Amino acid sequence: METKTIYIAGLGLIGGSLALGIKRDHPDYEVLGYNRSDKSRNIALERGLVDEATANFAEFAPRADVIILAVPIKQTIAFIRALADMPLKDNVIITDAGSTKAEIVAAAETYLDPSQVQFVGSHPMAGSHKSGAIAADVNLFENAYYIFTPTSLTRETTIPQMKEILTGLHARFVQIDAAEHDRVTGQVSHFPHILAASLMEQAGAYAKDHELTNRFAAGGFRDMTRIAESEPGMWTSILLSNKQAVLDRIADFQGHLDSVADLIEADDADGIWHFFNQARLTRKTMEIHKKGGIDSGFDLYVTIPDQEDSILKVLEILRGISVMNIRINEENREDINGILQITLKNQKDQARAMDLLAKDPNYNVTL
Amino acid sequence: METKTIYIAGLGLIGGSLALGIKRDHPDYEVLGYNRSDKSRNIALERGLVDEATANFAEFAPRADVIILAVPIKQTIAFIRALADMPLKDNVIITDAGSTKAEIVAAAETYLDPSQVQFVGSHPMAGSHKSGAIAADVNLFENAYYIFTPTSLTRETTIPQMKEILTGLHARFVQIDAAEHDRVTGQVSHFPHILAASLMEQAGAYAKDHELTNRFAAGGFRDMTRIAESEPGMWTSILLSNKQAVLDRIADFQGHLDSVADLIEADDADGIWHFFNQARLTRKTMEIHKKGGIDSGFDLYVTIPDQEDSILKVLEILRGISVMNIRINEENREDINGILQITLKNQKDQARAMDLLAKDPNYNVTL
Repeated sequence: METKTIYIAGLGLIGGSLALGIKRDHPDYEVLGYNRSDKSRNIALERGLVDEATANFAEFAPRADVIILAVPIKQTIAFIRALADMPLKDNVIITDAGSTKAEIVAAAETYLDPSQVQFVGSHPMAGSHKSGAIAADVNLFENAYYIFTPTSLTRETTIPQMKEILTGLHARFVQIDAAEHDRVTGQVSHFPHILAASLMEQAGAYAKDHELTNRFAAGGFRDMTRIAESEPGMWTSILLSNKQAVLDRIADFQGHLDSVADLIEADDADGIWHFFNQARLTRKTMEIHKKGGIDSGFDLYVTIPDQEDSILKVLEILRGISVMNIRINEENREDINGILQITLKNQKDQARAMDLLAKDPNYNVTL
Repeated sequence: METKTIYIAGLGLIGGSLALGIKRDHPDYEVLGYNRSDKSRNIALERGLVDEATANFAEFAPRADVIILAVPIKQTIAFIRALADMPLKDNVIITDAGSTKAEIVAAAETYLDPSQVQFVGSHPMAGSHKSGAIAADVNLFENAYYIFTPTSLTRETTIPQMKEILTGLHARFVQIDAAEHDRVTGQVSHFPHILAASLMEQAGAYAKDHELTNRFAAGGFRDMTRIAESEPGMWTSILLSNKQAVLDRIADFQGHLDSVADLIEADDADGIWHFFNQARLTRKTMEIHKKGGIDSGFDLYVTIPDQEDSILKVLEILRGISVMNIRINEENREDINGILQITLKNQKDQARAMDLLAKDPNYNVTL
């Protein structure tokens, strides 16, 4: 295995975690980093995420075998354009980490020369409540989807090479068309953010004339609007770089709302029941209860008795295993006991936790 | 204080918990119960929720000073109608526990005789992931909103009498107009259920042609569709008994979606940013982070270090205090540490937990 020089532009959570993941399986690789802010560069150097760091993007580009752009969408496109005029190694692989793919792929196909460089779009689907180089984590992408979107600049060997470089991420590689990526994430991520923010906007306006709105909002409302607290700048960029898919989902959703309104207007109890029941069944059968994509982990479901310290007792059994998240599922269950949902870091921890809890007759554990 | 006979129709979670709450402060009251199913009646008798139980609603009605209808909306209306033809005590108080109020209040005003009986609508806003007489809990309504909606059959003394009977619930009494109750819950509860089920319906249909939809759905999508798993029968009744308010919210929401679509269509980055930012600010300022109404409790927010067993250590400090729910807030926070949200049962436990955690320099605790 020949050694390589990897240049990562953007040393935030994503770029920093990519650096650590690459180094895990390739300690001999040289990893270079770009970041505008001194703070992130210094942390990246101190933590050993990168071997060298620069505030001038052009400085390290000529040394790289692989360039990973882990910066916001617009800056990714600006860097792609800038790379077209830089002296680069022959056949350098350029890739990115943006949340939408079609625009970035189009920029690469427009500006870059397929006889000189290779380009493949990438979307590592992981996130965290943390951010910045200081939060970079070698396990961030463990079992997460890492999506490749091929372009006219992607050669037969481009994706295999990238997979080999990224083995240390322990991610699940998926390859799809850039436009399809944007359509699917438009449905399951971008449009839901619009829904959440619109519901918040609507309730906020309603509260002005109906003062009890704020006091009576809780439970389901809280869950439905949680993502309305996401970072506005990032989501503005995402919507604007995925216009058609998002507009299509909005228009389609208006049709769904029209249908429900028609059922209510017509007092169609069977129709409304079927609508709710179908939604419930669809959700139960969707893969979302299992290992999903975006910021999800490995879950266990534990039936716990309704007693003081019951969560504590479960965690005592799991002592030493990293618990990524934990919650009681509250929604109208017909069970007598609570269902504790525990999110573990990886399959190994999930299996260990399963074993430990299964030994204890007080708990009923399922995946 | 004279003794009273309270007749509760429906011995499920709500009816059973009301029985326990009434008995807590009034052990001398006679509590009678009606339930169609043998199982709930037997549990209610075994647990001492009621002194006597019947499967024939008419049987105990003549003995009651207060009749509480804790059955589904349609049955509540049927019972109100039936009560009009039963021999009742003079000035008996009749009330209910339905999720919508205008229809029930209208039924009472239509069928009942104000010179013979008193009627006030009630909505005890509590829920649980549990159900049935076996789950009845004397603390279910602790600090929850208990809403009274007055009617033309509500006398000056009706609500004060009910409050006195219900002191043992430790609930927060609120009095509002039935129509306003239905409008507000339409906004914060009924319409969000339509949104969640519609999103699930839409994504389910999309998944048929876009197979990665299920695999990429997680995180925010999961939160937004959680309440799509609610019981279809109950929600069908709620929508049909709150038609106008719900239809109004659907139409209004379509206007909000139109506006967002216009901003995207026009590439209006400032407008979209403002839309997301306003939603974020509105959510932050809404009371929903604090004690809300529906199935919510008292929350504490604890900053925890990113270490193994960090949740366990917090729970060890809180040993002996009932933790209703616990979760890590994952959404794109800019903090380095995780924020652990802990839901306690009541204000006393919240204050105790706050004290215990504040003493430990490892934790930063906020309400």
